Amino acid sequence: MHLHSITVADPPLRSSYGLHAPYALRTIIELKTDDGITGISETYGGDGPVAALEALRDRLTGMDPFRLAELYQQMNQPVSDGDRSQTYLLPGENPLDQNARTFAAIEIACLDIIGKAIGKPVCDIIGGRVRDLVPFSAYLFYKHAGGGGSGNDRREDEYGEVLDSPSAVREATQMIARYGFREIKLKGGVLPPDVEISTIRALHQEFGDAYPLRIDPNCAWSVETSVRVGRSLHQELSGGGYLEDPCPTLDGMAEVHRCLVAENNHTPLASNVAVTNFADVPRARSREAVQIVLCDPHYWGGMRQVQHLSHLCGVLGMGLSMHSNSHLGVSLMAMTHVAAACPNLTYACDTHYPWQTAADEVVAGGRIPIENGCVRIPDKPGLGVELDYDQLARGRERYSKLSYRKRDDEAEMRTHVDPNWKRILPRW
Amino acid sequence: MHLHSITVADPPLRSSYGLHAPYALRTIIELKTDDGITGISETYGGDGPVAALEALRDRLTGMDPFRLAELYQQMNQPVSDGDRSQTYLLPGENPLDQNARTFAAIEIACLDIIGKAIGKPVCDIIGGRVRDLVPFSAYLFYKHAGGGGSGNDRREDEYGEVLDSPSAVREATQMIARYGFREIKLKGGVLPPDVEISTIRALHQEFGDAYPLRIDPNCAWSVETSVRVGRSLHQELSGGGYLEDPCPTLDGMAEVHRCLVAENNHTPLASNVAVTNFADVPRARSREAVQIVLCDPHYWGGMRQVQHLSHLCGVLGMGLSMHSNSHLGVSLMAMTHVAAACPNLTYACDTHYPWQTAADEVVAGGRIPIENGCVRIPDKPGLGVELDYDQLARGRERYSKLSYRKRDDEAEMRTHVDPNWKRILPRW
Repeated sequence: MHLHSITVADPPLRSSYGLHAPYALRTIIELKTDDGITGISETYGGDGPVAALEALRDRLTGMDPFRLAELYQQMNQPVSDGDRSQTYLLPGENPLDQNARTFAAIEIACLDIIGKAIGKPVCDIIGGRVRDLVPFSAYLFYKHAGGGGSGNDRREDEYGEVLDSPSAVREATQMIARYGFREIKLKGGVLPPDVEISTIRALHQEFGDAYPLRIDPNCAWSVETSVRVGRSLHQELSGGGYLEDPCPTLDGMAEVHRCLVAENNHTPLASNVAVTNFADVPRARSREAVQIVLCDPHYWGGMRQVQHLSHLCGVLGMGLSMHSNSHLGVSLMAMTHVAAACPNLTYACDTHYPWQTAADEVVAGGRIPIENGCVRIPDKPGLGVELDYDQLARGRERYSKLSYRKRDDEAEMRTHVDPNWKRILPRW
Repeated sequence: MHLHSITVADPPLRSSYGLHAPYALRTIIELKTDDGITGISETYGGDGPVAALEALRDRLTGMDPFRLAELYQQMNQPVSDGDRSQTYLLPGENPLDQNARTFAAIEIACLDIIGKAIGKPVCDIIGGRVRDLVPFSAYLFYKHAGGGGSGNDRREDEYGEVLDSPSAVREATQMIARYGFREIKLKGGVLPPDVEISTIRALHQEFGDAYPLRIDPNCAWSVETSVRVGRSLHQELSGGGYLEDPCPTLDGMAEVHRCLVAENNHTPLASNVAVTNFADVPRARSREAVQIVLCDPHYWGGMRQVQHLSHLCGVLGMGLSMHSNSHLGVSLMAMTHVAAACPNLTYACDTHYPWQTAADEVVAGGRIPIENGCVRIPDKPGLGVELDYDQLARGRERYSKLSYRKRDDEAEMRTHVDPNWKRILPRW
């Protein structure tokens, strides 16, 4: 096992968590077999994820990459029950998910090994694709001026400052022109709700019903504000879009849904905050708190667990979409393969990929093409991508020079925007 | 695709459905690839299953055996909702399951192909085993004197007539001595409930708490009788055993459970009659009608669907066991591989295998060993078994001479036991 701690330049994107730092942290995993095959994966970065992977080194040495369920069973309780909140945690930082995250990084690299060993794409190893093209959504952020990186290592600021509705429409127009996305997500919880309402309305006016819209304020709103936004955006969100984590907790989400349904507003609620674990799913269903679960192979325990989640959501009559974090092409391909092999994927997946640049990509041949909003399953074995070791070395070098080893959007916000800033929930 | 319709000698076993005929019908499927690999599977027999498989022939020609999810999706609705009763149907004869059964036969043969192509056992292809030894239960039947077969083609009557409690204990003793089973299932619904209660008590007295007991009357009892039996056998069934399908429908099962729990009797109820489809599972859970789902790769849509079922039951806090029909070694290995790859398998699996004999086995090398009640995952690729083509030819020959093409336990009962016999539910 080789672990590569790298950084990826990241623009000053805003969310209710605060501000993205100039570099996001990622870890690239290589697992090498006796017979010379290298499987790769990508996961969260920084000291914590690397230490968790290091702790598995002895267990992995000599392991059969096909014997994944046994490793999963050893690392994970059947179902973590009890209350477990993601509300105040960044994705990838819930201690209850740690083993699922660590397992996922290993599983994906093992599936890449298997695919390479037998000459089949990963999606076909895990049961077979049901689509060759996986749709992703345009992921809009409010942001400050600036590309990613810092000092002499700055990336181009492709989208400029986006802190009002007209600039958000411009951002969407640019991103859609470049990638062809057919669904649009706005990261909200940043500007006052009335501004974000006007942004969604402006996007709807610009793109029309053919582009379903979703907004995700990451729990920044009270139940009352969530209902008010849901009511205001009834028309804009209900045509194949959704309202994502407007407020914290299943109880809060259930109350929002109840109030909206009482007004004959059936905008579905999506979540990757109130629902982060299998035990949450039936609870979310029975309380009618969440209608769409946002999966993620990185913290739901890998590809096969996401397939189980997809199936579970289908059985319970719930939709499935996919969450994303700042990531490179290895993660994008893992997301694409598992999405291709999930029959019950009812929405385009999220991806931060447009926010990263070729300068940071570690995949040989450069960035993965997104065309007509979709990533195509490559006609290559495994994940279908190899590492560019020069680029990887550059990522490691950037990492070595970086002063932080953990994402802290709140600190970043205090440094660059407001020295007194705190994440307050609900803010509105 | 080569389809082999065969018969398997079957002793005169009794159940609430009636009487087993002298021969059970099975179909052996061979799928041959361009590069000379043959994958095999075994499913229900007779005209219906063969016609359903034949109808797929064009679709399968040229298909990639890895692309299974796509075929499943084309053949099956996401979740068949609505009321669908198995109560009056023999397993394998529910028209709502037909495509799931047909798909399963193809899937298992494709997984055998994949395993043989890459040199790995099927359990490791589908995610990896969590156990090398899969436990099965002793499956006791009340029966008339006689082995399987008819005319000059009769099998040895290993267990003799079993129509009372002492002979059932003798049957269990013989079967456990031969195979080492550590859990015991009695097929009930045959003799008056008080006799069956006394049989379970006699088994418990003979084998003690170390051998969990289950009884399955196939819906022969009313709610009242079910409660009375559950009450009478509280001690005998609650130590790791269960009460299986005492009465029809989820409502009936829920009422039985409610009455027993009111008496502080937490004997779990198991089902493969009220729960035969994914849509049934959350209903069974929310009504507290069923605590243990009985899976079966043959009619739940194959191995990966059984893995989803295992996961679903884990998430919903339900147990999982496995149903069986009269079968040969190919089915036994399919059951063993999928059971090995289901972390949430909470009981020994059922198998009818002790009721079949070497004379009918189509697996090269003869019958699969069951030792200490377990089947071991072989250190061979695929399912780990090959066909004995001479034996297969004998099975086909027996089939060609047989007058029936469909299982009919009720007709058999009328011919051999009681000319006026009808399946009446509830009988008691």
